[in-house]
Amino acid sequence: MHAVEAALKNPARRANRLLLTENAERRLTEAVGPIKLAIERVTPRDLDRLLGSDTVHQGAMLETELLPEPEWSDLANSANGRPLIVLDQVTDPHNVGAILRSSAVFGASGLVMTRRHSPPLNGVLAKSASGALELVPVALVANLSRALDELKSAGFTIVGLDGDAEQSIEDIDWSHPTALVMGSEGKGLRELTRKTCDSLARITTDGPVASLNVSNAAAVALHTAMLARRK
Amino acid sequence: MHAVEAALKNPARRANRLLLTENAERRLTEAVGPIKLAIERVTPRDLDRLLGSDTVHQGAMLETELLPEPEWSDLANSANGRPLIVLDQVTDPHNVGAILRSSAVFGASGLVMTRRHSPPLNGVLAKSASGALELVPVALVANLSRALDELKSAGFTIVGLDGDAEQSIEDIDWSHPTALVMGSEGKGLRELTRKTCDSLARITTDGPVASLNVSNAAAVALHTAMLARRK
Repeated sequence: MHAVEAALKNPARRANRLLLTENAERRLTEAVGPIKLAIERVTPRDLDRLLGSDTVHQGAMLETELLPEPEWSDLANSANGRPLIVLDQVTDPHNVGAILRSSAVFGASGLVMTRRHSPPLNGVLAKSASGALELVPVALVANLSRALDELKSAGFTIVGLDGDAEQSIEDIDWSHPTALVMGSEGKGLRELTRKTCDSLARITTDGPVASLNVSNAAAVALHTAMLARRK
Repeated sequence: MHAVEAALKNPARRANRLLLTENAERRLTEAVGPIKLAIERVTPRDLDRLLGSDTVHQGAMLETELLPEPEWSDLANSANGRPLIVLDQVTDPHNVGAILRSSAVFGASGLVMTRRHSPPLNGVLAKSASGALELVPVALVANLSRALDELKSAGFTIVGLDGDAEQSIEDIDWSHPTALVMGSEGKGLRELTRKTCDSLARITTDGPVASLNVSNAAAVALHTAMLARRK
């Protein structure tokens, strides 16, 4: 519901079809006002059939175009003290969706990820993002280390998150434009990505397990950056 | 792999069957040493068939008994300055698994959840927990508000996480024994749970979206508590 609501409120989002149960139409109309799209009335079971019975839905399905891709330079220019998140082949759409959601909660300026080896910006990801896919610009790049070099040229400090780093994220100076790079769950940062970073940092831990789920690590890092920014 | 490895290392975990690919056996033997269980050799495709083709596995499947349930009083007594996490009907096994993982990373003393309306402590949850299911005691209770009352009697302060609270988690005094209660994604804390809490607290945010994924919220709260504890 949040994802469909946010997409309908986003003037940049072009939508083609809107399928709603009676209940969902009532809730959405309350949330967004009159809906300009033709509504196709469905039952929950119709959506089960369309989306697969494992998909939890709340009676709403919106078929849309992808959002126009943001200009790379706009993304770098709009940071305004907020960190940029860079994902190095994080493949799980639920994780990327949750990272977008945390980015919208703690004020990250955008998300950069590779065009290949990243999940498609589809319904699964949009649902996990809970509306944030409409709010946080996502840039897809062909070559991550080249993109990091461009960010450096634009004045960004590139910090890679790495459990073995000596510096901790709680000690980072977030007052400069900063891009925080996070690797995939299994493998972490790729070697070339790691080498391209200006520095590495770890999240301080205090327990028998060392590594967080990647979306949880992103949330902790973004929260830490936000608190530092406010000081 | 992490979940199977941790289960094999846990003397309290009784296992019945271990199915491994050749590759997985090599990796596990490196990690845990000689394996006492009879190993049934399988191919990755055998596991696809057994687990469903949507399940990502790394060539290892362990069939186990549930862990013995911890004594309620042991859980309360072992806190030792670390917060206890209480879940009010969080139903997604991936979220509960990730919360266990963050609990093991940031040193929460245990997890309390309702016996009903919580996910089973099965393979899906164990995989998301990445080994933490063996390390963080999980207590299942029939009646959550009664359990919270018992925790109060044992000297705990009960803090409910709520986006509308005035107090922020960054200002909480974590030096007393504290139980942090988190509600389900859709509905948040139930009314009776909310009333039973000593106080409510929110995570400070700075962006257009107000609410985090529940496992991300738990990670941020546990990280905050850990930093406060270290000061």
